[in-house]
Amino acid sequence: MSDSRRYRIGFVGLGLIGGSLALALKKAGFAASITAWDIDSSVLGRAGDLGVIDSAADSIAALMQSVDIAVLAAPTQACESLILEMLKSPGGTICVTDVASVKGDLYRAVAASAPEAAALYVPGHPIAGSERSGVTAADAGLFEGHRVILTPDTNADPQALGLVQQLWTAAGATVQCMDVDEHDRVLAATSHLPHVLAYALVDALAKSPIRDDIFRFAAGGFRDFTRIASSDPVMWRDIALANRDALLAAMDDFCTHLDALRTSIADRDGVALERRFRSAKTARDEFARDLAMRDSGTI
Amino acid sequence: MSDSRRYRIGFVGLGLIGGSLALALKKAGFAASITAWDIDSSVLGRAGDLGVIDSAADSIAALMQSVDIAVLAAPTQACESLILEMLKSPGGTICVTDVASVKGDLYRAVAASAPEAAALYVPGHPIAGSERSGVTAADAGLFEGHRVILTPDTNADPQALGLVQQLWTAAGATVQCMDVDEHDRVLAATSHLPHVLAYALVDALAKSPIRDDIFRFAAGGFRDFTRIASSDPVMWRDIALANRDALLAAMDDFCTHLDALRTSIADRDGVALERRFRSAKTARDEFARDLAMRDSGTI
Repeated sequence: MSDSRRYRIGFVGLGLIGGSLALALKKAGFAASITAWDIDSSVLGRAGDLGVIDSAADSIAALMQSVDIAVLAAPTQACESLILEMLKSPGGTICVTDVASVKGDLYRAVAASAPEAAALYVPGHPIAGSERSGVTAADAGLFEGHRVILTPDTNADPQALGLVQQLWTAAGATVQCMDVDEHDRVLAATSHLPHVLAYALVDALAKSPIRDDIFRFAAGGFRDFTRIASSDPVMWRDIALANRDALLAAMDDFCTHLDALRTSIADRDGVALERRFRSAKTARDEFARDLAMRDSGTI
Repeated sequence: MSDSRRYRIGFVGLGLIGGSLALALKKAGFAASITAWDIDSSVLGRAGDLGVIDSAADSIAALMQSVDIAVLAAPTQACESLILEMLKSPGGTICVTDVASVKGDLYRAVAASAPEAAALYVPGHPIAGSERSGVTAADAGLFEGHRVILTPDTNADPQALGLVQQLWTAAGATVQCMDVDEHDRVLAATSHLPHVLAYALVDALAKSPIRDDIFRFAAGGFRDFTRIASSDPVMWRDIALANRDALLAAMDDFCTHLDALRTSIADRDGVALERRFRSAKTARDEFARDLAMRDSGTI
């Protein structure tokens, strides 16, 4: 496989992530052509007008006949049936990948229902996003400097895996592989749990008898802490349900630590309280330092 | 009392908040002079060099003899004994105020131990701060456009209350009065609880067996959500203990809502889950809109 080869890329579902990846792959010269199918055909018209895609496919089967790499970039809840439909009509496709935030459920569905095509499927998750959504928000630079986690099965076809790695590298991302269940545990901890906590906090305050004063006197720190509670409720409902087991485990672990803090406060145990606050501060300062170095390209 | 009168202002404790208020009152022409006492006398030398204060007092009693308005701006844990010492030697002071984040404990200590001087005491809390601390970080514009909550007793001396209102208005803040227990409940909900949640989350993740991957793959959203876990552990230990009862009640209310989300996720009840996520998003979007209008001066 030569580095200069260009590939026909197909998208099933075309929103912010699919559209941004299409633009990035065109810009990098990795894409020979971009084809897309979306359940909402008006999206394809808009994407054509914006120059995000070269052609629209009438069906998933037609799309799979005409591309080298097929990318599933649909909402979480639709992914399971779509990935099976894609894998059951692979045509001449070299590899199939996806961008879903939860990976275990798709992995298990494919293993159970399309084991013969599983080797072509390289699950992926770009750790990037935006407050905006939809193909009109597509941005060729969305993945630049971000990480993409791939969770390939041990039986994955090496050519398929290599090609998905090349695709994300061409889009400007750094690729790392991870066990599929570890991926879901890591994302439950760093993303899904914080969203649930922010939703729970704002929901609790919104139903408080002193709601008006609470929102009147909340300031910038509260705005930052609760920003993620402004995320799309349908998308997060689907992610929470798709990653149910890992999320419940993360919630329970969090509650154990919150209970310990509650006990220290109730017992007026300043020593234990300060110890836990300090341990958290140390970890968070280290993390922020590493992230700043990562953002600046130092590591 | 003429608006153009200038006052001799005294500070007990001189860090970021006291130093910033001193600079703001000098700049506004409200202060005839600034005197300060601090348990760490080296702070007073630095403050003099920086032009934050005009003179240093040898003791709290000496300070109270020579000022019109005395402001307690010390760490939470020290406030109770300091406010009593101030009120027991009022000298010619017209009013005494403070800037502590928790108000009920001080209010009750004063009512119990210095009821004869309680009328002079107007508790205050500026809703402003900075990641930085200490008098060297003092900033004359720190309170500009921010809110200050006063929690005066119904027996407060009207002249004392009026003067503390003038002082904060001169510093650029908007002043609002509130019942002392409601203040502590509001702050528990909007500030103390979010800090405890952020500390609990980072503490839980730091002790996770997959800690390294968690911090490696966490991104900008996680950084924003956990920023307050980088706050000073001693300061927040003291605030949590000072506002113990209201904070425990806020934690329990939060946990009731978190449990409800847990049940919806465990039961795969997408309807209930979406309803709560959506209610939170609506409230948070409204709050963010109001805050943006407030920041821009529209309301």
